This record gives sequence, C-alpha cells and structure tokens, in this order.
Amino acid sequence: KMLRRVLCTVLFMGALPSLAEVSQGHISVVLLGATGDLAKKYLWQGLFQLYMDQVSSGHSFTFHGAALTALEPGQRLMFDVLKKLGCPPDESPNRCAVLKDQFLKLSQYHQLKTAENYTVLNREIETLLRQEGLKEAGRIFYFSVPPFAYTEIARHINSSCRPPPGAWLRVVLEKPFGHDLESAQQLAADLTSFFREEEMYRVDHYLGKQAVAHILPFRDQNRQFLDPIWNRHHVERVEIVLKETVDAKGRTSFYEQYGVIRDVLQNHLTEALMFLTMELPANVSRAEEVLQCKLQAFQSLRGLDKNSAVLGQYQAYASQVQEELQKAQDYISTTPTFAGVLIHSNNLRWEGVPFLLTSGKALDERVGYVRVLFKNRAYCTQSETLRDAEHSQCKAKQIVFYIGHGALNTPAVLVSRNLFRPVMPEGSWREAVGQSDLHIFGQPLSDYYVYSPVKERDAYSVLISNIYHGRKDFFITTENLLASWAFWTPLLDSISHQPLRLYPGGVENQHLLDFEMESGEVAFTLAEAVELLNPNRLMPSDYRTIQSKFRQSPLVSAWSEDLISQLASDIEKTASRTVARSGQFHLALSGGSSPVVLFQRLARHHYAFPWKHTHIWLVDERCVPLTDTESNFFSLHSHLLQSVRVPYFNVHPMPVHLNQRLCVEEDRGTELYAKEIVALVANASFDLVLLGVGTDGHTASLFPQSENGLEGAQTVVLTESPVKPHQRMSLSLPLINKARRVFVLVLGKGKHDITILLSRVGHEPRKWPISGVSPSSGQLVWYVDYEALLG
Amino acid sequence: KMLRRVLCTVLFMGALPSLAEVSQGHISVVLLGATGDLAKKYLWQGLFQLYMDQVSSGHSFTFHGAALTALEPGQRLMFDVLKKLGCPPDESPNRCAVLKDQFLKLSQYHQLKTAENYTVLNREIETLLRQEGLKEAGRIFYFSVPPFAYTEIARHINSSCRPPPGAWLRVVLEKPFGHDLESAQQLAADLTSFFREEEMYRVDHYLGKQAVAHILPFRDQNRQFLDPIWNRHHVERVEIVLKETVDAKGRTSFYEQYGVIRDVLQNHLTEALMFLTMELPANVSRAEEVLQCKLQAFQSLRGLDKNSAVLGQYQAYASQVQEELQKAQDYISTTPTFAGVLIHSNNLRWEGVPFLLTSGKALDERVGYVRVLFKNRAYCTQSETLRDAEHSQCKAKQIVFYIGHGALNTPAVLVSRNLFRPVMPEGSWREAVGQSDLHIFGQPLSDYYVYSPVKERDAYSVLISNIYHGRKDFFITTENLLASWAFWTPLLDSISHQPLRLYPGGVENQHLLDFEMESGEVAFTLAEAVELLNPNRLMPSDYRTIQSKFRQSPLVSAWSEDLISQLASDIEKTASRTVARSGQFHLALSGGSSPVVLFQRLARHHYAFPWKHTHIWLVDERCVPLTDTESNFFSLHSHLLQSVRVPYFNVHPMPVHLNQRLCVEEDRGTELYAKEIVALVANASFDLVLLGVGTDGHTASLFPQSENGLEGAQTVVLTESPVKPHQRMSLSLPLINKARRVFVLVLGKGKHDITILLSRVGHEPRKWPISGVSPSSGQLVWYVDYEALLG
Repeated sequence: KMLRRVLCTVLFMGALPSLAEVSQGHISVVLLGATGDLAKKYLWQGLFQLYMDQVSSGHSFTFHGAALTALEPGQRLMFDVLKKLGCPPDESPNRCAVLKDQFLKLSQYHQLKTAENYTVLNREIETLLRQEGLKEAGRIFYFSVPPFAYTEIARHINSSCRPPPGAWLRVVLEKPFGHDLESAQQLAADLTSFFREEEMYRVDHYLGKQAVAHILPFRDQNRQFLDPIWNRHHVERVEIVLKETVDAKGRTSFYEQYGVIRDVLQNHLTEALMFLTMELPANVSRAEEVLQCKLQAFQSLRGLDKNSAVLGQYQAYASQVQEELQKAQDYISTTPTFAGVLIHSNNLRWEGVPFLLTSGKALDERVGYVRVLFKNRAYCTQSETLRDAEHSQCKAKQIVFYIGHGALNTPAVLVSRNLFRPVMPEGSWREAVGQSDLHIFGQPLSDYYVYSPVKERDAYSVLISNIYHGRKDFFITTENLLASWAFWTPLLDSISHQPLRLYPGGVENQHLLDFEMESGEVAFTLAEAVELLNPNRLMPSDYRTIQSKFRQSPLVSAWSEDLISQLASDIEKTASRTVARSGQFHLALSGGSSPVVLFQRLARHHYAFPWKHTHIWLVDERCVPLTDTESNFFSLHSHLLQSVRVPYFNVHPMPVHLNQRLCVEEDRGTELYAKEIVALVANASFDLVLLGVGTDGHTASLFPQSENGLEGAQTVVLTESPVKPHQRMSLSLPLINKARRVFVLVLGKGKHDITILLSRVGHEPRKWPISGVSPSSGQLVWYVDYEALLG
Repeated sequence: KMLRRVLCTVLFMGALPSLAEVSQGHISVVLLGATGDLAKKYLWQGLFQLYMDQVSSGHSFTFHGAALTALEPGQRLMFDVLKKLGCPPDESPNRCAVLKDQFLKLSQYHQLKTAENYTVLNREIETLLRQEGLKEAGRIFYFSVPPFAYTEIARHINSSCRPPPGAWLRVVLEKPFGHDLESAQQLAADLTSFFREEEMYRVDHYLGKQAVAHILPFRDQNRQFLDPIWNRHHVERVEIVLKETVDAKGRTSFYEQYGVIRDVLQNHLTEALMFLTMELPANVSRAEEVLQCKLQAFQSLRGLDKNSAVLGQYQAYASQVQEELQKAQDYISTTPTFAGVLIHSNNLRWEGVPFLLTSGKALDERVGYVRVLFKNRAYCTQSETLRDAEHSQCKAKQIVFYIGHGALNTPAVLVSRNLFRPVMPEGSWREAVGQSDLHIFGQPLSDYYVYSPVKERDAYSVLISNIYHGRKDFFITTENLLASWAFWTPLLDSISHQPLRLYPGGVENQHLLDFEMESGEVAFTLAEAVELLNPNRLMPSDYRTIQSKFRQSPLVSAWSEDLISQLASDIEKTASRTVARSGQFHLALSGGSSPVVLFQRLARHHYAFPWKHTHIWLVDERCVPLTDTESNFFSLHSHLLQSVRVPYFNVHPMPVHLNQRLCVEEDRGTELYAKEIVALVANASFDLVLLGVGTDGHTASLFPQSENGLEGAQTVVLTESPVKPHQRMSLSLPLINKARRVFVLVLGKGKHDITILLSRVGHEPRKWPISGVSPSSGQLVWYVDYEALLG
C-alpha cells in the first residue's frame, strides 16, 4: 500500500524532469538473496545508482528484495541494508537524499520459498501495474544465491513470474557456472529449459570494471593508431594479471573445490584476453557483433597442456584447509592458489605473441592490470642522457588497462607517450595529473598519457546499468561460457596431479614465483625449488627414459608423453645436423594415429626445427583424395603442416589422385613418386623414415602375406590392405632400407602382443613386414612406450 | 756503422735475458712513410712496444724508416719522432730508458724512391747479417703510404727486397683497399702479382681494438653459457656502433670520395659483425679455421637495398666541401656522413635477428660498442620495487663489447649479472670496480659484470705484435676483403641518389637521426623531417586516391603506395563477401613485378583475410621449375604464401614441370590445369582475376600478334613470349572473361605510354591483348597509379 503511494508520488512529482516520458513503462527488479553478502556490499548500492541514473528516463521502477527468511525479520534485515546506502561523491546531497527516500519507499521485501510465494509476487506486480495504469516494460530477476538453488528458482520464475507478452524478462546469474566443461554444459542445459538465451545475463563482474569495460571502446576509438600495430609484428607480449594479498582463509570450503584457475583465470582474465584478441566488429556497440567476434577469438586459442602453466600454493593453505574442512594432518591439497599460464592464439594477427595470464593469493601486492608491451624497433642515435620521454622511440612502448589497486590505486588507461595520444571519451575519462614521482612498469608515470574515469564506478553499478540497457555484450552467453570451459578443461584435467610450488606468501615470495617462457612452455625461473608439493609420490616420478636394445637395435622407452617428447627432440637434432651438413633434410612420415601426437609436439614445441630446409615425404597413403579426412596427408597437414612453415615445393604428398581418379595403375602414380624421389633425394636415401607397426606386424602399407613391395626394384608400390580403404600406395621395403635413419614408433597397450612377438622372431618380412626393416647402412632405433613394452 | 755496433751490444749484453735463444734469427722491419702522420702517432710507438715485448724472444731486430725525403732531412725528421717515444705505464722506467736507447740505435733512416734505393737497402740488410753472422728470420714492410703508391713499392720489394729462401716476407697494407668491388678487385689483382696471399697483412685497426679482438676468445671461453642462447631464439637485436663528435673538416678531399659507409661500416663495423655471427671454429687460435668461418658468415648475409639504410649529412659539410675543394656555391654533395644500416643473416642461427650498424660524424658523443641484447622471456611476479638486480630475470640481459671512449672511457666487456658470470682470461682482463653511479645502456653499471684490460693497449701495438706472430686472422685476407665489398657495393650503388637527412651536429641532432625497423627495412623515426636533402624534390605529396572511369570501366588511381593499399583492401572485401556467400574464394593471380608489393601488403596487413577458404590459382606461368626464382609461383610463394596459411590443397601452381620436364605438349599440362579448374571452380568462373599490363599491351601471358589463347574453347594454353623465358602457360582470354571480377593493376612511369594508348583504342586483342579483357557478366576495375596515368 505504501508502495503504491510512493510510486504515484514519484511519477507525478513535478520536481523531477522528463515527466512527459512516463510512457516508457514499468520495470520490476527482484533481487533474490536480498540480505546476502553480495547484495549488502554491492547490489543494493548498484540498484540505487540505477535508480538515480534512470529516474528521469521515463521508466518507473519497483524493487523487490527476496530471500528465504520470513517476512518480518527479512524486512528488518533488508531495510537495515537500504538505510546505509551511500550517496556517490558526484551527486548533489540534496537530490540524493530525496531519491534515497523514494528508493526506500519503492523497495519491498518478499519471502520467496514456495511456488505459492512466486505466484503471489507475480500477482502483486500485476495488481500494482493495473491499479496505476502502467504498461509493463520488463522484469529483472537477480540471482544472488548459491548455484544449487538456481534450477528451483528458475522453474518458479518460468512458470509463475513471466511478464506478459511485450515486456521482457532478464535473469541475472552469478558465477560459478560449473567447474568444468561437463558441469557447465549440464547447468546450461538446465537453465535453457526455463529461459531463452536472450533472457539470461551471466555476470562476470570483471566486465563491469571500468578499465576492462573500456578495452573495446578504446580499440574502437583509436583504430587509426592501433590498426597498424595491434598484431604480432608489433606486440611483444601481453600480461593479464590479478594479484591478491589476501589468502583463502575462511573461504577454503569454496576455494578448495575451485582454485585459482577456476576462480580467476577461466573467467575474469580470459574475458579480458578476449577483448584484446578478438577482431573488432565494425560497430562495437552492437552486442551481437561483439559476441560473435569474441566467440571466434575463443576458437583461435591454441590448446593448453600441463607445460602451459606454472602452479603454486601458499604454505599456510594446507593447514587452513585441514582446520576449516576438518581434514587429517597428512591431508594434502592439490588446489593451486597461484598460476601463471602462457596462452597463444593461432589467429594470424596474434600468432606467436605470448599472452601471460597470472593470478595468485598471498602475493606481495594487490593489483590488476592488462598490459600490452610493444616491440622496440628503434635505434636512438642520441645518447640516453639526452633523450626526452615524449619523443624517444627507444623507451618502452606500452598500453596498460589498469584495473585498480596497486601503486595507482584507481582504474586507469595508460599509453606510452612515444606511442600516441589516445582518443578518450571526454565525458567519462579525463587526463590524470600529478604523482610524477611514481614509477610504473619500469618507467616514470610522466612517460605515459594517463586517463582515469571521471566517475569511479563500482563494477556492479556498471553491470546493473548494462542489464537495464540490455547490453548482452557485457555478459557471458552460453556459447561464450562453454567455449571458455572447453578451452580450460583440458588444462585443469592435465594438472590435477601436477606438483605445486610452495611459497611463503607476501613479499617473502621474492623470486620464487617468477617464471620464464621457452618454446611455447613456461617454467619457474628458479629451478632449485625450495619445496615442491607433489601429490603423486607413488608414481615413480623419476622414471626416466630408458635406453636399451630391441631386435639388436637401440631401444628408447618411456611413458608415452616422455617418449614422444624424446622422439621429437631426436628428430629435430637429426634434422639440424643434416641441414648443417647437406643443406636439406628429407623426412618420410607414416600415417596412422600414433604419429599424431608427435606431429602436434613438433608443431608446438620445436621452433628451432629447420622446416625451411626440410622436405616432407609420405611413407604410405590411402587411395582417397588428399582432402579426405581418411587421407594420411590430410592428417599430417592438419596436425603439423598447417602450423609450421615448410615451403610448398618441399611438401610431397603421394600422387594417389591423378586425373581426378584414385590409384589407377595406368596413371603411373608410383612411377611419378619414384621419379620425384630420385630427382630430389640423393641416392634415394631418405635422411629419416618414421615407421609404425600394426598389430598384424605391418609397417608402411606393406601387409603380411602380400609380396608387393617387400623386395625387387620397384621403390613405390600399390598394395592392398585387409582393412578399408583397401587400396594403398607405399614406399617399398628396399627403399626404406636405403634410409640413413629409421625410427619405429610403437605406442599403447594394444601393441603389447606384437611387441613381445617381434622381440622373439627373426627376419620374416612375409609374415611380419616390420621384421624386414633393417637399413643396409643406416641406423634403426625403436621408440616403444612402456604400455607397448610392458603391457 | 753505428747500427752494427748497437746490434752487437744488444745481442751480447748480459743484462738482458734469453741470450741463449739468439738462434731465432733476425727480423728487419721497414716502415714506409716513416715520417707521416700515422707513423708519428702510432706506428713507431707500436714498433717500440714490439721491441720491448720481444727483446728477449731470441729474435734480433733492426728498424728501417723510409720515405721519399732525402737522407739528411729525413733522418732529422724521423729521429725527432723517435726521441718522443713514450714509456708505457706498466713498464719500469729504467728498463724502458735502456730499451729506448737501444731502439734508437737499431733504427735507421733510408730514402726509398728509386729502384736503386731498394737494391741498396737490400744489400745493406744482407751485409749486416753476414757481418754479424746472423740467420735471417724475416722482413716486415709496413706500407704507411697513400694507396696510389702501393703498386710501385710492391714491385720494388718483390724484385729487389725479398729475403732469402727460408725467411719470411710480410707486407702490411693500410686501407683504403678500393672504394667498391671492382676497384678492390683491381687493387687485389695488382698486389697478387707481387705477393703471395700469406705475405699480405691488410690492416683494419679495429681488429686491434682490445674489446673487438676479444669477441672471439670470449665466445670461445664462454661456450657453456653462450651455446644455448647465441641464436635467434634468444637474441633480440645486435647494435654495432661507432659515433664520432668530430666532423670531416680538413679531410673532405678524402671524405668526399668515401663517406661513412666506406670509411667505417664496410670495414670496421663489418669485421665486428663477422666476429659475432660466424660459427665458432673448434680451435679459435687457428687462423685458418677462423678465416674460413668468417668467410662463410659473409656468404650468409642477406643482400641490402636502399631501404636497408638511413643516411644523413651534417649541415656544415656542404660548405666545408665547397671551401676545401673549391666547389661552386650550389654544389651539392651526396656523401653521407651518417648511416644506420639494418643487416640480416640467412644463417639458421641468426635468421630474423636485426643487426644494426651505425656510424656518423658530428654526433653528440664519441663512443664505440658492440651490444648484444637478449630477449626478455620472464614474468616476474614480485613487484618491481622488490626485485634485486642480480637475480631478477626481468631486467634487460645484454653483453657489450665496449670499444672505448663514451661514459666508460676504457675498453670493456660487460655482461648482465642475470645472464652469467663470464670466464675471462686472468692475465689480460680484470674485473673493474667503482663508478657505481654510472648508467649504461639503460641500467646502472652495478647490473653488469664489468671487465677491462689489465694493460690498455693501442690498436696498432696489438696489430704489430700480431704481424710479428704471423696471426693472419687479425688481418683482412683478399677473399675476406672482396666478400665485404661484394656485400656493400650493391647498397653503395643504390643509394648514390638517395636523399640525405641534414642534421645540425652535436647534441642538437636530438631525435633527428633516430631510426626504426619495420618489415626488414629502416626509416627515420621523425617522418616530418625538418629538412631533406633530396635531389628529386618535385613530387606532390598529398594527392589522394581518386575514382573515375577508364575504358568505360571503373578506375581507381592514387600514388602507388595508396593504390596498393586500396587494392589489397578491395581484394579482402571481395574475399570475405565471397566466402560468406559460397564458402570459398577462387583467386587467380598474375606474375611479374607489380603484384609483389601487393602480395607483401596482403601478407603483412590483412590478418582477417579468409585464407583458409581461399584457393590460389595462377593466371600465367613461365616454363621453369617452380623453385626457380624466375617462376611466378616462386615469387608468389616468397612474398605471400609463405607468410599466410592457405591450406596446401588450395594452392594450385600451373603444372609446367611434369615428368621432370618443362611445358612439353604431350605431358598435357594445360589440360590437367583446365580439368582442375573445372573440378573445383563453379562454372570455371573465378571469383577474382588479377591482371597486369605489359608495355606492349600483353596481359597474362597472352602476347600481341599471337593467336593462342585469344579465342576458342581452350581455357589454358601454351604461349610464346618475345622475352625470355620464351615458353609460357596462361589462362585464355575467354576463361578470364568468365570471371566474376577482374582487377587490372598498372604501376609506374614505364606504363604511361601504354596507359595513354589504351585510353584511346577499342577492342583489339590481337594488337593489345589487354584490350580484349571484358568480363561477360563480371566486373572490371582498373587500378592505375599516378605515374602510369600522368607520366
């Protein structure tokens, strides 16, 4: 009843402007969890700010706090919060006092527990609107409740609280949105059964941080300067950092399940990363275009593995967990509280540029920033002492989106003065002055143009305003969310048993958490870690690659991942030596599934590989078009060739598809390939041939009980496989045996039987073609993983 | 007579050690130009130092000063110099006084002018040795004379002054050794007719500078640290710098013919570059191995062109030249007094690493250094204020060979403390202390390990000692010299008409001479040059792209750079739209020189280009192997394909090299290509065909007065070009006219006549094949630059 009166007062109070625009309609905001921590700290203040900002917009508002608590005590709790709402410094105290008074009157508490409660709420809203003759514009339901409560509330809203046709529904959801891809998919599926995609506003409050929110507008407004330099040719590296001084004490029950990657990197830092790397849509204010570009940016990210990250845990964490979660004294937590992750994008714009995402608790300072460091391409002829900051191209060039805290203690955008004077929106950002003695990112503050917001706004205020304006690009769409989890989940899986570096916390961490990049991986700089927290004490972690003999030839064996990395290194070493000696390296590669991991490793970790001087040949091929996913060449192309720079002329797929038909004898594909080999490879002796072994003992496409290619003068042959596709082209055994080196790769339990068998049989190529591999003057090395060797 | 007495005294003076080793034999040193500037300033002092160092070596010495001056006055002049010889601070004054006295007595003046004079000198040496019963070890002839006198002197020495068999001859030559490749070859040929290669010691006094001379030993002694990082993966850039404060006043008659590149870069800085980039021989003290590796390093250098250098001239130079060389007031000198040159090595170790060579007169300070800057790959979690120099991996990492002068004012080797503590030879280099307030290369001196020589030695002393020891690796061999000129001459030729930036000199140069690298080229940073000394000033610079009509089709025209960037954007737009519509984009590209800039622009600036969905076809091809530099495909590959990611399957070079032979009709290459087009391109209608125009009106490889390909059903044809290579493969006019879009690119003054002609003629493909281009249902657009359009 009171509410009605206020609404009328407000609507018809001559003192407030824009009376004429009443026709915009009414908005009901329902804050679920109205007396919780987040609501107390940020959300009510954000709603009040919304009211202050939009009171003259033509919309009328009512605010409905809701919780499980009964009406009386709930009301009391809620109004205690509302009474303490503050006035922003940029608002006149009088106006604020009047508006606060109105805001309190427009706010009402509801107990929302049962289905009946929701029906009642809906009825109340309808009644009010009818009585006041107001058109309904829309309803906002803000879920400030634990995620387990989501489904139930969503069901009630969907069934009883939807606004009438013509008015919108916006439900606002708070993280966590799952803890891996599967759980996120499940949660998303649940919500999708109640809400349409455009109705859901998933909050990542980082997108409301003023410096983060300004990344895209900045890129847009400064296109003229950034267009030429916003790419791998000019950007040296990017750091996206959130350092905290606090630890997880008191929150371990949450933190122990999540850890720093799920808590900060998967969401906040990844979102900032997307704003940096995405292609700019023509119109950055069109949410749909922005979201589309962002999604594409996700798809360009290169996959992570355990060597993409360094992980740490502050020393006190273990005892905090033991205490708070009542764990035993010997309980070891594997939850990282510090992570540094190296990310690469395969997008042509960013290829090779390192993006370092770092966050941790119990660090030496509280600060957040996104720092883009440009390459230094200048030589300054004048000696250092005579250079001036503004013009010297020899000083560092950087653009920093300073999120807050730290030395500056304010959100800011910093641009090195030797880059350009940025275009900033005048109403909302202003040039900052003073603090000239401050050094930041290695330079005096005076080396930068520094801008800070005219009005410093809390992230939630910004987001609530964006919910009101329907700016979906400030929120996480389902596709966006799942793309992010799809990116992070493999890393999370692979590090679950990784050792963590223990750190004392605070300034005492010193250089313990510094890390370095090398060949697309990261590692702590100080190798002699003081203490490592390694959960798998049982796994023989110091198993090493073992060297031995197999069939009278050298054998290298290890767990498959180590084996592959050893093999890749050995191939690179062979390649470098061969190129140094003869200027080129002729490498013949097999198809099949085993080499795929090898190809990926070569593509991602071997930057020094002399690809430019390497010729790639096929050991065998299936008679399908090269663009068929069954083609060995296609697989080689997807996993290796498209990521490295082998000259076009040096790539030699087998000619299985001449004259638009497959392996027809009269097209003479085998002869053609043989001729090409003779023309390019000295003595037709490959520098390295990589082979595999089938469970039936076949190698290349040379199959048991088939004479083709086992002997004779023909170097390239057509053969028949017992499995589909039957037709194959293959190098012959005599040609393979002319190679300077042959490496045979055998992986997995499935190969155990044939491995054992091969260890016993002699030279019987007709039964087991692989047993015929025996380079006449070259070297043969077996790479067999423990699973194949030991079963 | 006096000489004999002294020699005996010295030889039998018990006070001096190593009397027993007299048997090493006698060395005669003949200094030609004994009273010239260089001799006065350095050479006599160097010879005296040699004497002091080697008096106990078992060799006996005589020193013969020679000049054109008659005996009496020459003797007086020379002994005036000798009397002023100084004692080094590290020598005891007594010993030095005794030795100086002996040195004077062992020295004699000769007038060497006629053939007769040389014969007399030879006889005197022989007589002396016979009388003293001394075996002859060797003779050193030091040419401190102008180069025009070389041949004459060389002839005399060769015919009259050679030592007897068993003793060596060493002739020491001072630069300049020619002013380009041809003159250097001539001079070398002249000398070779008198001396054997092992007899010639060409001096580059930089090789005697202690810091330069220590580069190789340093690399050798620190192999363990440098091996992993002395390569493109770790080195960010290298700077080799010699800055002078003096100008060329008083020396313009020499300088005007040479300029800074010939005076400093071609020799001194290039030699330092070689020591850095050459592969380390197993044994760095074996001169032959060193020289061999150095020569290989020369062969790896990537060729230079005019965009590899920035050039300047100090303002007063012109008037100095006018005055000293009696030139007219409007005489313009094109001699650079400042140069910055960007050099790349194609060696796998250094590929992509920029080597910046810089030198100039009238700069702000006198200093010389070789600076190797390493990449920063670390992220330091601790905030800057808490890092310490020694351990922080986030500080700059550098190794500097400090040649002298500048802030340090001593030769030195500096190694950043976060790199490694270098191994230095204890006897000759010691750790320097003090001067902690000094900043050098952006860091306090305390961030480095600093070593300086125990005995500071003048370059000539070092070199004279190396001549004595026969260390040929401290000198420039003929091969070495010619390799250097072969490298520099193309640049010198190409810049002879380049504009020079004028600079005021001294500290007032400010940032005028700073320069930047971009895509393998360099340019001054300040584009709005205050004054340019540009021989062709006439060009209007603010023309914009204009749109109009040409031959009834749209015309886009601009200065070539703007035109190319417009064309590249238009191609990208077409590609994106086409891919959006049909999933793929079929682009047919022409060969020739005009598209090269376009290819480069596409490769470097169009990150959003849908390469993954683009098929690349050739409009025409020369009948050469695809790996031949003449091949259109090869050029397309180097400038575009190797930088972008077009899938292998989407690249369609013309099959001009089937069965290892070129364009043989029965191999049916044209049919094969036609079939491939039909199989992949809908309706055989390319989405975009890019054409050029020849001065004779040819387009694709369709030439005037030849019917092939102008009409008929054949879509791909073999044709004959009037210029080499004659045989070509080309798309036919009817096929081109089926395209959805055809862009014709016409660039440069050379195309002005044909452009004018084409604006007037109608459809006459037999005379001008380009006039037959008229897409039946597609669009034709002309891209013609102002030079082609306006002449």
